[in-house]
Amino acid sequence: MRKLETVIKSIQPVDHRFLTEAQDRLDSLTKPRGSLGYLEEAGKQLAAIRRTTQPEIKEKVVIVMAADHGVTAEGVSAYPREVTSQMIHNFITGGAAINVLARHIGAKIILVDMGVAEDIESAPGLLDMKVDYGTRNMVTGPAMTYEQALLSLERGIEVVEKQAAASPIDILGTGDMGIGNTTASSAIIAAFSDLPIEAVSGRGTGIDDETLERKIECIKQALDLNQPDISDPVDVLAKVGGFEIGGIAGCILSAANLGIPVVVDGLISSAAALLAYKIQPLVNDYIFAGHQSVEIGQTVVLKELNKIPLLDLNMRLGEGTGAALAIHILEASAKVLSEMATFKEAGVSQENKKSKTKS
Amino acid sequence: MRKLETVIKSIQPVDHRFLTEAQDRLDSLTKPRGSLGYLEEAGKQLAAIRRTTQPEIKEKVVIVMAADHGVTAEGVSAYPREVTSQMIHNFITGGAAINVLARHIGAKIILVDMGVAEDIESAPGLLDMKVDYGTRNMVTGPAMTYEQALLSLERGIEVVEKQAAASPIDILGTGDMGIGNTTASSAIIAAFSDLPIEAVSGRGTGIDDETLERKIECIKQALDLNQPDISDPVDVLAKVGGFEIGGIAGCILSAANLGIPVVVDGLISSAAALLAYKIQPLVNDYIFAGHQSVEIGQTVVLKELNKIPLLDLNMRLGEGTGAALAIHILEASAKVLSEMATFKEAGVSQENKKSKTKS
Repeated sequence: MRKLETVIKSIQPVDHRFLTEAQDRLDSLTKPRGSLGYLEEAGKQLAAIRRTTQPEIKEKVVIVMAADHGVTAEGVSAYPREVTSQMIHNFITGGAAINVLARHIGAKIILVDMGVAEDIESAPGLLDMKVDYGTRNMVTGPAMTYEQALLSLERGIEVVEKQAAASPIDILGTGDMGIGNTTASSAIIAAFSDLPIEAVSGRGTGIDDETLERKIECIKQALDLNQPDISDPVDVLAKVGGFEIGGIAGCILSAANLGIPVVVDGLISSAAALLAYKIQPLVNDYIFAGHQSVEIGQTVVLKELNKIPLLDLNMRLGEGTGAALAIHILEASAKVLSEMATFKEAGVSQENKKSKTKS
Repeated sequence: MRKLETVIKSIQPVDHRFLTEAQDRLDSLTKPRGSLGYLEEAGKQLAAIRRTTQPEIKEKVVIVMAADHGVTAEGVSAYPREVTSQMIHNFITGGAAINVLARHIGAKIILVDMGVAEDIESAPGLLDMKVDYGTRNMVTGPAMTYEQALLSLERGIEVVEKQAAASPIDILGTGDMGIGNTTASSAIIAAFSDLPIEAVSGRGTGIDDETLERKIECIKQALDLNQPDISDPVDVLAKVGGFEIGGIAGCILSAANLGIPVVVDGLISSAAALLAYKIQPLVNDYIFAGHQSVEIGQTVVLKELNKIPLLDLNMRLGEGTGAALAIHILEASAKVLSEMATFKEAGVSQENKKSKTKS
């Protein structure tokens, strides 16, 4: 049995008893019931994942997966393809947005070359998991072979497994880098949805009207030509996906398998989450939506996965930036459960019985 | 000239040149233009307040002001009045939500007794600024005298001035504690708006339908009886306000005067921000809306002040909890400006000229 299959089969549901137990604890804490809103909801989900009413989030990891996309030949991006590898150097030297935000939340970054078009010189914190030198142009054929799609998923799994074996991970954030990858992500989401391509395609890094039209046309052509089989998510990944998207989907599968909460970032990570969910629906309870991206395709995924994003900061950068900021909120959720005093401990009077909210 | 007048007259506008300079810097950083959304907008505002394109947020302070409200005699809250003083002890021993979140963001809490109904034993970190032992019941007369309203504003100013003189403050968050204070806050907001009382009154700590009706009726009666003069915000504060609300308004005025960005929390802090803005409109550029509260009255203030809240976590706790989480986001904004590499520094290619977004 290959690795992917083993992982899919070994993923367990979260423990729903801890939803109730965490709710009881939250209701015993010195605050009006439910008054911390999504902090409480997130805390319950963390409790169910970690199987404790007082989950700890100390070791934070953001995985940034990079790859190139053959579809850039169609002129679908505002930036040249070379920016993918240039940004890897920026990640390594610590100058990118995700470096700043990961430092801000005290998270470690793991940078992964899943399929950048150039050879990248080895550097500390950079993993070479290259499946190929960029995908092929999905407008003229499948983006990758079926075997490459499986490999990208499995290499994503491997990254998390190795890291978790070396040092415990309390929470994982996912991020991406790859010029052209909003085109691939929107294509994946379009394949799984009944919506017109226009309804799942956005401006990515900031393209103009003309380029957006071309991008939409490319996605149409790619789907028409390749006819991805949506009953087989690996086929969808192969036909119109990307190596970093497969890698992130693998990370999500692995996180669920290891009982690690995983915070997905924007459009690309959400497309990966959709793939992971289609592969193994049990992953969904391990997933948090980090933020509402500007990219409209992401909203479609959030709806399908029934997720409320923790942040809505009008961001559209990727790299895991939204996930990083959301991890800080989730850490707060966990601390509320473990650090707040109960009414009893603090000697604070509870609600007047008459005035309990009925809602 | 009394202190309040001196401060009002000495508040300066923020320096709008730094909006442009910070925008230029943001556009030079290795990310698509505008892709960090509100982080960029907030960064520009911080730059204009601090008069530098690389503002630093290190010393973070959350001020929690507590007071009691005579209107609780009408049965407008889900909790007994005693909870105000009980919660102060909880703040002192570190078990309340704001303690957990302030520790989480590395902020110092300053706890202020602005007018709790009981004497509170002195404790480290607690300031005694008591104006009176709770307000009077606004349903039967003014909540406080005009002189007390002035005093509450001035004591709020004094708290920030003393703290800033003792140790620099890079950012200030405001918070409140006071059973009954959503009733007072909604009354203030109702006084300044043309909206029906129902449109600015929420369930506070979680009251039922019957109590909500009573609360709305109390606000109506208080406004009808006391006829606050909206051309004089101090009169509004005196007629239907609270000592902690005046205190927070004073903090906001003082922060603006000292050039300190101030993050307002939910309904109560927003009512205070509205008062401060009505007293001196220049304060508005120093204000950040920490979060979208569940309380509908807050939305009215945010609209009037033209603020987009940084967070929307379905919270309704007060204490400064929303402000605390938002301070972490603002810190991220500042770090983006000071820590990210430029395209030039990182050797990353810029946008294709043809594909620049027109929007």
